[in-house]
Amino acid sequence: MNVLDHGFVELIDHMGDDLTIVKAARTSYGGEGHMIDPALAERLLSTLLQQAHGTPFEHVVFTFYVRAPEMVFRQWVRHRIGSFNVQSRRYTQVGPEEFYVPNTVNQELIREHYQKCLELYQALRTLGHKPETARLVLPGYAVYSNFYWTVNARSLMNFLTQRLDSHAQWEIQQYAQVVDSFFAEVLPITHRLFHKESV
Amino acid sequence: MNVLDHGFVELIDHMGDDLTIVKAARTSYGGEGHMIDPALAERLLSTLLQQAHGTPFEHVVFTFYVRAPEMVFRQWVRHRIGSFNVQSRRYTQVGPEEFYVPNTVNQELIREHYQKCLELYQALRTLGHKPETARLVLPGYAVYSNFYWTVNARSLMNFLTQRLDSHAQWEIQQYAQVVDSFFAEVLPITHRLFHKESV
Amino acid sequence: MNVLDHGFVELIDHMGDDLTIVKAARTSYGGEGHMIDPALAERLLSTLLQQAHGTPFEHVVFTFYVRAPEMVFRQWVRHRIGSFNVQSRRYTQVGPEEFYVPNTVNQELIREHYQKCLELYQALRTLGHKPETARLVLPGYAVYSNFYWTVNARSLMNFLTQRLDSHAQWEIQQYAQVVDSFFAEVLPITHRLFHKESV
Amino acid sequence: MNVLDHGFVELIDHMGDDLTIVKAARTSYGGEGHMIDPALAERLLSTLLQQAHGTPFEHVVFTFYVRAPEMVFRQWVRHRIGSFNVQSRRYTQVGPEEFYVPNTVNQELIREHYQKCLELYQALRTLGHKPETARLVLPGYAVYSNFYWTVNARSLMNFLTQRLDSHAQWEIQQYAQVVDSFFAEVLPITHRLFHKESV
Repeated sequence: MNVLDHGFVELIDHMGDDLTIVKAARTSYGGEGHMIDPALAERLLSTLLQQAHGTPFEHVVFTFYVRAPEMVFRQWVRHRIGSFNVQSRRYTQVGPEEFYVPNTVNQELIREHYQKCLELYQALRTLGHKPETARLVLPGYAVYSNFYWTVNARSLMNFLTQRLDSHAQWEIQQYAQVVDSFFAEVLPITHRLFHKESV
Repeated sequence: MNVLDHGFVELIDHMGDDLTIVKAARTSYGGEGHMIDPALAERLLSTLLQQAHGTPFEHVVFTFYVRAPEMVFRQWVRHRIGSFNVQSRRYTQVGPEEFYVPNTVNQELIREHYQKCLELYQALRTLGHKPETARLVLPGYAVYSNFYWTVNARSLMNFLTQRLDSHAQWEIQQYAQVVDSFFAEVLPITHRLFHKESV
Repeated sequence: MNVLDHGFVELIDHMGDDLTIVKAARTSYGGEGHMIDPALAERLLSTLLQQAHGTPFEHVVFTFYVRAPEMVFRQWVRHRIGSFNVQSRRYTQVGPEEFYVPNTVNQELIREHYQKCLELYQALRTLGHKPETARLVLPGYAVYSNFYWTVNARSLMNFLTQRLDSHAQWEIQQYAQVVDSFFAEVLPITHRLFHKESV
Repeated sequence: MNVLDHGFVELIDHMGDDLTIVKAARTSYGGEGHMIDPALAERLLSTLLQQAHGTPFEHVVFTFYVRAPEMVFRQWVRHRIGSFNVQSRRYTQVGPEEFYVPNTVNQELIREHYQKCLELYQALRTLGHKPETARLVLPGYAVYSNFYWTVNARSLMNFLTQRLDSHAQWEIQQYAQVVDSFFAEVLPITHRLFHKESV
């Protein structure tokens, strides 16, 4: 699923479904959890969401592979939600296809600027400076990087509450919408109830 | 997999394998991660374990369903490793099959004592006391309860380091050994290297 | 501050006050944070609480020293809020003054039962069993232990929301009320706004 | 304490000392913890460090106020150690004094480049673009920002192990050394033993 000019979000693995949450919650009430009536499941999920009784949602886990500009990544990691593995910018190569160009600004102007930054970066590299130093001249907020993100359903809802919000930066909202569509696929009942709750 | 007299450990779900860890780690080095030579994978996993570079191991996740005496459970939750959902003892029924009897003590003596505790518990219930109050007369450390435990591979190794240790209480060592055997099934290479490292 | 028959809560150290939260939050808005108008401070704290914007509250930290029955302790640690150091029951001595006797039950009946449990415990010790095994015959939920608890203001409010609630077990509500009174001393403005919000 | 060209680290508050750790640890061994022999305290701290028995160190807490380039900040937050509040770059003004110029490169060249970036930034602002969009043309890795960092002694040692290491980027090593000097002031015994252990 493509996002912005060079970004994407892929769901590369997940574990558990709506029933996993019900079973985990019923264990905490001493129930058997083997024969589950759908209407009852829905009612229990709704109660758990309303009462902010979050631990049962921690037994459903997602791993995403994401490509996003630094500006977005920085907001993503800020609230320490889930586990991250990100490309180190200390070692990797950079090229013009790795900078985010928003379509609300004069694109030629921006591309020309990025090109000059890149030329200065290459000049510093040629002079023998390490990538970790040379990158200081790059448009750092625009640089794309790739990361692995593993997160449970409780933390994912926390992320969505913050990042689907209309006050969040436009770019991260685009990523949050794709993450939300994967959430809907894996946990259709929880997803529906979550959005009903949030209204 | 049975443990002690009435306990067990089941692996009810898991996500990821040895290659997941390698791919997550290589992302952080900017690599492609698609064609992975087995010898190279092993070398990378070994380096990650030696350097305590733990984040790539957080992308492999296990969910266990466990039945253990309170004494063991209390040690399990103590280090805040992973996510738990446990049967609440405020609501559940208790019967004689729910107390742990170690085979190193006079079993008849213990069973008779547990029986008296249970009779007093029932008497208090008959008098109208809630289970949450009546349970005060029960042999609390011996009471079995069931719980869901979701944990990533990094935290699981942390748990094993502490609980397989010969200074850990004997009962929790029994549980840790079963958890370790599931770890070996899901992550054979990491498991082998982890035990080599620990020696 | 005494709680129940043999318990207590002491605030042994704390760091920061209402202004610390304001300063930390204003840094995140780029402000100077040196001259702070009280009315403005109150308005900012109120906004932070309403928007569940919790990170500024993490810069105020409390350390409590608590003595509570196992039944209460178990609920306390369950949500992995803050840092704990608790007396290990594997090594410590036990005496009759270390069991919780609720005043809603026949106290003589309970004390007599506890006394019998204690005698059996001592008999097992005399037979050479370790404390960690012998304690299986004790009324585990009633045993008092002491613990250190270090927690930031954000997590403390989370604890209070759960444990001051009228559905929480009566005993832990008693502890939560004392914790709440220390919260009021250290963070008077935040405390007032928090209780206004919660209504 | 100044770091790099425009950065600094201030210790603005702390809670606890070497004895706090000893007392917290002794609670977990059932001791009184009131009369503590210095030699005994040192031996206990040494044992705790060697056995990676980290929870007692969580009862000592530090709050730092730091100014660092984005490049350094990004590495700082990456391991989710402690609590952060950082100036949002979505709202703040930028000026030439807010970019890091390393003294290993041609400083005139860098300053001239930063100046051009800043002029383009201002031009975009004049055209009506928001700061959060206009900053895409800035040298993002070099931009300074200020943050509050609250961290306990256990996590602080974890940070120092990673960031004092000679493989860490030179700039973050400079910050880690200042943090280490504050650690030495607050916890002189633990600091000495920690560095002995690490060798």
